[in-house]
Amino acid sequence: MRNVSERTSALKGSPIRRLVPLAVAAKKRGIQVYHLNIGQPDIPTPHSFMQGVREAKIDVLSYAPAPGIPATIDALLDFYADMGVQLTDKDLRVTIGGSEAFAFALQTACNPGDEVLIPEPFYPNYAGHALMNGIKVVPITTRIEDGFHLPPMEEIEKLISPKTAAILFSTPGNPTGVAYTREEMMAIGNLARKHDLFVISDEPYRELMYEGHATSILEIPGLDEHAILVDSISKRLSACGARIGCIVTRNRDFMTSIDKLCMIRLSAPTFEQLGLVAFLKDPNYKSEIEQMRQKFHSRRDTLFEALKTIPGAVCRKPEGAFYIFVKLPQIDDSEEFVKFMLNEFDLAGETTMVAPGAGFYATPGVGHDEIRIAYVLEEPKLVRAVEILKAGLETYARTRQQVAAAAN
Amino acid sequence: MRNVSERTSALKGSPIRRLVPLAVAAKKRGIQVYHLNIGQPDIPTPHSFMQGVREAKIDVLSYAPAPGIPATIDALLDFYADMGVQLTDKDLRVTIGGSEAFAFALQTACNPGDEVLIPEPFYPNYAGHALMNGIKVVPITTRIEDGFHLPPMEEIEKLISPKTAAILFSTPGNPTGVAYTREEMMAIGNLARKHDLFVISDEPYRELMYEGHATSILEIPGLDEHAILVDSISKRLSACGARIGCIVTRNRDFMTSIDKLCMIRLSAPTFEQLGLVAFLKDPNYKSEIEQMRQKFHSRRDTLFEALKTIPGAVCRKPEGAFYIFVKLPQIDDSEEFVKFMLNEFDLAGETTMVAPGAGFYATPGVGHDEIRIAYVLEEPKLVRAVEILKAGLETYARTRQQVAAAAN
Repeated sequence: MRNVSERTSALKGSPIRRLVPLAVAAKKRGIQVYHLNIGQPDIPTPHSFMQGVREAKIDVLSYAPAPGIPATIDALLDFYADMGVQLTDKDLRVTIGGSEAFAFALQTACNPGDEVLIPEPFYPNYAGHALMNGIKVVPITTRIEDGFHLPPMEEIEKLISPKTAAILFSTPGNPTGVAYTREEMMAIGNLARKHDLFVISDEPYRELMYEGHATSILEIPGLDEHAILVDSISKRLSACGARIGCIVTRNRDFMTSIDKLCMIRLSAPTFEQLGLVAFLKDPNYKSEIEQMRQKFHSRRDTLFEALKTIPGAVCRKPEGAFYIFVKLPQIDDSEEFVKFMLNEFDLAGETTMVAPGAGFYATPGVGHDEIRIAYVLEEPKLVRAVEILKAGLETYARTRQQVAAAAN
Repeated sequence: MRNVSERTSALKGSPIRRLVPLAVAAKKRGIQVYHLNIGQPDIPTPHSFMQGVREAKIDVLSYAPAPGIPATIDALLDFYADMGVQLTDKDLRVTIGGSEAFAFALQTACNPGDEVLIPEPFYPNYAGHALMNGIKVVPITTRIEDGFHLPPMEEIEKLISPKTAAILFSTPGNPTGVAYTREEMMAIGNLARKHDLFVISDEPYRELMYEGHATSILEIPGLDEHAILVDSISKRLSACGARIGCIVTRNRDFMTSIDKLCMIRLSAPTFEQLGLVAFLKDPNYKSEIEQMRQKFHSRRDTLFEALKTIPGAVCRKPEGAFYIFVKLPQIDDSEEFVKFMLNEFDLAGETTMVAPGAGFYATPGVGHDEIRIAYVLEEPKLVRAVEILKAGLETYARTRQQVAAAAN
């Protein structure tokens, strides 16, 4: 029997998704699970978007134009103009979610055999797309004690080889909530110019920023040939299931390749492109995003205070997005701890699911004492979930001590 | 300035899309253009599908499950059961159109450097996906005089090398309308077993069949480990813009890889998956598809009769889909002829746009006297479009003779 391809065999399943069956089993046992393990907001999708889908005047649901529906492109150009970035329709293509924009960016920036620099911890699907395209991930390790900000540029520069084609990251970032400062973005830009690299900046959380301004790669001057923006409506509209994103670049050759990739996959879904037009044409759209931002801001503060009650836990207050990375005390394998929380522990019939940290690192052995928490639940639930986590940690440490004592 | 990747540079833009600006210019000059150049049906999308989208009960438009929404998978399993193919939810995943299903199939079946056999003429995006994945297309040339049916299996067998991983095709086929007989499908199956190849069968037009039964790869016994079905609702529902397809295989290892590819791209669009459920739950859905089939059947017959009026034109009556390939008299470069029709010709203010044939072949130099016609317009329009085509051919031949005479 013929083997499937080596690339797809080598793809790792998501470490988070692998644990989902344990949560399902816990629920079957009657345990309530607080899901802080995935980046799926709980906030209703804006009414204007939904109405735009439902009231779309469509008789024949034909292929949308490969680059995007013109009205959608125009609405997005206005959206960027509102944030102070002037673009033309030559600079933007609508994609099937940020995922497709990212895949297209990587395929256009890199030949098989090339290397990309990625600050770790990073979104695991970056590695999956790299593997599928024969591209090597070279991690730039960042530290929880630095709030996951970038190391000095000289250190990053040491990682650059003749095969390095791009540096890529998300900011504000999944999984850490770090948002690179304007100075960091300028430094990355200088590095890109000096070594002739593409910069792929994944910014779906740009509007979810709680400390200062989230600097977009499009705001850094002198990067027209280097900067590739990957964007998505999934998070800022709580519309993950819409599968609408975009790719933006002023590099004409780059966009010529993107256009050909768009043609191969024919089009992004029509209804949701029209939903986005309706949302962005609604005079209230900014206040809707602002309300969402405030909600996550408040959750972040509440969660951060709650985490302080866990003795020995290390974390920094994230600047944006809706994630926090936490180093746990007395944990040497956080995946085992997550399994324990789902399989063996409950506090009055409730438990908490988080994401183990190691799956977000490319460097082996790093992150095994860390977890990612997504604050995608209401504040009282966040407080309760941390209370459960804390109790779970205590029980886990005690159980492990007992096991160790029995073994001696 | 850094170059974009070699793969994306090497991608050919669609030969049809490259000509679209000429059609736009013709329209600006006031010429009406009959578009027989693309596979976009003109038939309204079924009401039940549209209602399913519009009435979907969604509060938070969250990621759909990566393998597909369970109700959508169930509805599709029933759909296949209705055509006599028994499947379980282990065998089917919902994809973002047939395009994604095809890309996933290719990526899972082949390593970079592998070869795939494809009967030509074929859908040009097959070659694009192959190029992006480092896979070599080995064409099996088929002939208009044989109605584009397969050559003897011994000839196909000669093309198999140690690098051959799969044979792939669409049936009923774009761009020729050929539908392989059960005997041909059985022979392909034997070849696949003998040489341990995957068979990727792309069947979006399966219900649009006018002579006999369209045999699906899933109906061929003994191919559980080899058969990969690529399917789509785009054509049979006239819902190209929905971006909903699926991939079906009973090969468990293959599906394990597909599952990982599904996770990387997160999910297929939610609204359209629910639209499909509504369509397939509608007791009238089969008669809706049947009405569409009858409409295209009648169009095919009308078009075929009309084409007989062109002296010297060669074609065979296609068995399915909504395309016909035609060899034109006195044409040595049909792309030049298509340009002539758009740039220089009109009959009482009207002209016809078709697709040049060479772009559907991988073998250089083949198909330059051929065109593809998509019968995606009402019958009176088809008759008029052929009348214009005929007049255009006469004028083109006369003009070229005059140019040749002047040059002597």
